[in-house]
Amino acid sequence: MGKLFLTRNYDIDSLVQRFKQKDKVALAKLITLIENHPETASEIFKHFHELTHESYIVGLTGSPGVGKSTLTGAISKKLLDEGKYVGVISIDPTSPFSGGAFLGDRVRMTNVSTHPNIFIRSLASRGYRGGISRAVLDITLLYEAFGMDIILIETVGVGQSEFDIYNLAYTTVVIMVPGYGDSIQMQKAGIIEIGDIYDVNKKDLGGEDIAADIDNMLDDSSTAQDGWRPPVVMTNSITGEGVEELIEHIYDHKEHLELSEIIKQRKKNRFVYKIRELLYHKIDTVLEDLISQEEINNISDKIMVDGKFKIYDDVHDLFSNVKFERKK
Amino acid sequence: MGKLFLTRNYDIDSLVQRFKQKDKVALAKLITLIENHPETASEIFKHFHELTHESYIVGLTGSPGVGKSTLTGAISKKLLDEGKYVGVISIDPTSPFSGGAFLGDRVRMTNVSTHPNIFIRSLASRGYRGGISRAVLDITLLYEAFGMDIILIETVGVGQSEFDIYNLAYTTVVIMVPGYGDSIQMQKAGIIEIGDIYDVNKKDLGGEDIAADIDNMLDDSSTAQDGWRPPVVMTNSITGEGVEELIEHIYDHKEHLELSEIIKQRKKNRFVYKIRELLYHKIDTVLEDLISQEEINNISDKIMVDGKFKIYDDVHDLFSNVKFERKK
Repeated sequence: MGKLFLTRNYDIDSLVQRFKQKDKVALAKLITLIENHPETASEIFKHFHELTHESYIVGLTGSPGVGKSTLTGAISKKLLDEGKYVGVISIDPTSPFSGGAFLGDRVRMTNVSTHPNIFIRSLASRGYRGGISRAVLDITLLYEAFGMDIILIETVGVGQSEFDIYNLAYTTVVIMVPGYGDSIQMQKAGIIEIGDIYDVNKKDLGGEDIAADIDNMLDDSSTAQDGWRPPVVMTNSITGEGVEELIEHIYDHKEHLELSEIIKQRKKNRFVYKIRELLYHKIDTVLEDLISQEEINNISDKIMVDGKFKIYDDVHDLFSNVKFERKK
Repeated sequence: MGKLFLTRNYDIDSLVQRFKQKDKVALAKLITLIENHPETASEIFKHFHELTHESYIVGLTGSPGVGKSTLTGAISKKLLDEGKYVGVISIDPTSPFSGGAFLGDRVRMTNVSTHPNIFIRSLASRGYRGGISRAVLDITLLYEAFGMDIILIETVGVGQSEFDIYNLAYTTVVIMVPGYGDSIQMQKAGIIEIGDIYDVNKKDLGGEDIAADIDNMLDDSSTAQDGWRPPVVMTNSITGEGVEELIEHIYDHKEHLELSEIIKQRKKNRFVYKIRELLYHKIDTVLEDLISQEEINNISDKIMVDGKFKIYDDVHDLFSNVKFERKK
């Protein structure tokens, strides 16, 4: 009933028709629809069953301030010049309070954002578990259906992030800047192990040291897995210096994955990850029906009175009554 | 049976006895026990039911490279000089591949780590949802039982992190550094809304600009909630400059929370958060029994053959058979 209502309101059929004629407004509307009503994805994707076009997915990750957005803009510009269709997904960590994405990234990418062959989407962190991950995979599928050649996913952080880019991207570029953090920090952030390519951006501020550091670390570590030794490049995303070289490395890595057939595993990973996320999503949606916020509040009040060390006793009853079953 | 086995092996009773005599080795062992066997927490906490000691919990958060560990060390030193007992929890985002915490933080804090009245614990991100959060609350409870006056929790990032410090800390200090990111980046990181105190560290590199920026933003925003206008301080965690002032602000905020009785809500929040985490944990533990990795792999294989846009159809059957129930 709810689904029928949605279908009528949004008229998926006509949106898809316009989408197939490369209408970017229809693409934007379908993304919004899937973001806000994930249950419509199945209905939308039914229209794409015959499509076989594939996009190459590149992840760009690094701490806030390293110039990811500008670099993504610079890479996009070169790709557009080559005649490529480019889809960008920019993942903004959002305040859990404001709930809205800050649009700084789109501001930064204005030099390319008006080009007819690029589509840029900023995503807010939804503040619940796995929300980003679910939406991102669906958007990559929409981009593939739209006919994008390359999808650039720009995201902050690794390790503690709810969204792990390497589960989705075929090539992951880790971006750093000179003078920012030392080796210990790099290892802490766990980034030295996830990059297929390392980029030291803002090379006008120096960066030979950090580039050499990463190089040494890559020599020491046993990360040269699958026969690929991650290269370290230096860029200046504002002048565009080094960006071409970076793109060359992305193409090299793509070729490496294809020749070694590792690409098959990376493509499959995308779906393994998605299925897990769908499963978590299903559980999250039923969770609120199982145990209400009011109950959790009541137990917290009880703990405040009984004493904090009784927390496990106080929650014991609550959990002992929850049953999970699977019909065979 | 498993529990009995554990109890015998670890001899919780004798560990707790030594713990109550302020034996730091016993504290370390109890933390490890709870980290690796969360189900022992209930057994351990039974011994503390009569304890009423409370610690004040301070969160220190900021991107990698802002000098959190050094600052935590400098704050600890001052607090130790005041005769305080200090418990530190340092949360390392770990590589999902290596699985172990990098001990850079403890290296950095060696100037205080040998003091008898401090205990420092580094935590690795466990790579599964909510793992950190569950362990952290239990460790704060152990620190409280041990008699710590202040607990400092040092953690990276906000927003996208799986562990949200403001759910646990009574006072949250957001740390930034000069020349690192601009206003847009700050807002992107969503940190401008979670701080009770803002600290610009590495003031030797300048920082008046960023401090003024934050000040303006705080003026503009409506974050002066609950009658507290977050102060902006500047520190040099290596020389110790400004650290005393920062601690004064922490005490001021503590007094504000106590006078306004907001502290009650913040204390309660800790448990609300914990109960949610326990609930998620229970679900995660049963999840693997419900749907195996092999099944997920099989479906992914099917998607690779059927075509990616059939993903929702292919997973539909899997989910339709999963039932969640709660006995009333």
